Amino acid sequence: MLQAQGRAVHQCDSGWVPVFVDQEQSISLMSVGFLLERPDEAVVWRGPKKSALIKQFVSDVAWGELDYLVVDTPPGTSDEHMAAVEALRPYRPLGALVVTTPQAVSVGDVRRELTFCRKTGLQVMGVVENMSGFACPHCAECTNIFSRGGGEELARLAGVPFLGSVPLDPELSRSLEEGRDFIQEFPKSPAFPALASIAREVLNATPALLC
Amino acid sequence: MLQAQGRAVHQCDSGWVPVFVDQEQSISLMSVGFLLERPDEAVVWRGPKKSALIKQFVSDVAWGELDYLVVDTPPGTSDEHMAAVEALRPYRPLGALVVTTPQAVSVGDVRRELTFCRKTGLQVMGVVENMSGFACPHCAECTNIFSRGGGEELARLAGVPFLGSVPLDPELSRSLEEGRDFIQEFPKSPAFPALASIAREVLNATPALLC
Repeated sequence: MLQAQGRAVHQCDSGWVPVFVDQEQSISLMSVGFLLERPDEAVVWRGPKKSALIKQFVSDVAWGELDYLVVDTPPGTSDEHMAAVEALRPYRPLGALVVTTPQAVSVGDVRRELTFCRKTGLQVMGVVENMSGFACPHCAECTNIFSRGGGEELARLAGVPFLGSVPLDPELSRSLEEGRDFIQEFPKSPAFPALASIAREVLNATPALLC
Repeated sequence: MLQAQGRAVHQCDSGWVPVFVDQEQSISLMSVGFLLERPDEAVVWRGPKKSALIKQFVSDVAWGELDYLVVDTPPGTSDEHMAAVEALRPYRPLGALVVTTPQAVSVGDVRRELTFCRKTGLQVMGVVENMSGFACPHCAECTNIFSRGGGEELARLAGVPFLGSVPLDPELSRSLEEGRDFIQEFPKSPAFPALASIAREVLNATPALLC
């Protein structure tokens, strides 16, 4: 998505140097993908090995000064999630952004993620509903392909903020597919105001960083 | 999806009795969900505990005579997948049905699943492309929300059968959401011929069971 596939991770005195996406080095990345020799190599690792690498990604990467560290986890409540929460605890993480799709079968899974956050003392910054409705680009009629409103209902029941719904958007998919800058190239796309509003909500929840 | 939430698992002389979906007992289920006390309980388990339960689901459930045992795994190539492959090896599994969505970022993940199958000696029965295009129910125009053709291309490159594409279909989502019988109620839905054709391909690949 960020056109960084195949980039190499180098070593410096203070640890692994993350991969920079842009010339200004405004976004730096670390992923197990950068450590594999071939892109189709399977990471057939059991929990302890995954947990050890996640801890290294926090402690052994020369992150420098960061405004935000975003950890994109797989779904579930297992080794990866426990390892990330444990490794980040000393840095007092702002919390979890919990993403669901609208239908009951996803909301059920995500409800268990909220239980996980409560159990591990991780604050829930809010719930986002993704794949929430699709406006046909041909006739402009909206279809709720995966039902609608499950994310908002979940947030209400769990007593956590609801941050917004992101519609299905072929232009967003295409941007991610081709590594294009969605914000620059598709400002009129239906997902744009949804994502901008969620970003504002997150910034508002972390006022210290706005100074 | 099968309206079995909240059902209990009982014990008999030959092990756990699976949950039956219908009166004819044509579909039986086992899931960690049946063993939880509350539906929002998080299964915060590390790999070894998950692996042990998966082995029990194969060896300690009174499955009886089955035509097919379908193991629905999470994405990835980790403890769950290794445990399932190991537990089922003595029963000579037919193979893996590998499901992807069309876009490159998913196909990349699934390519690693194919490597996992090769490494563990699991035959790949074929690749299915899910969420493959959406025909607007208002104007009938088709939009490839998540790109298109990634699954077929992956199968071609990996030299494994391509079993078909399942379009995004609000009626299929609604059936799963409400536990309705999609085959009975929505035979004219666009996902129906796609799923029926994939099922035929799978049956054709397992001729012994058709007698």
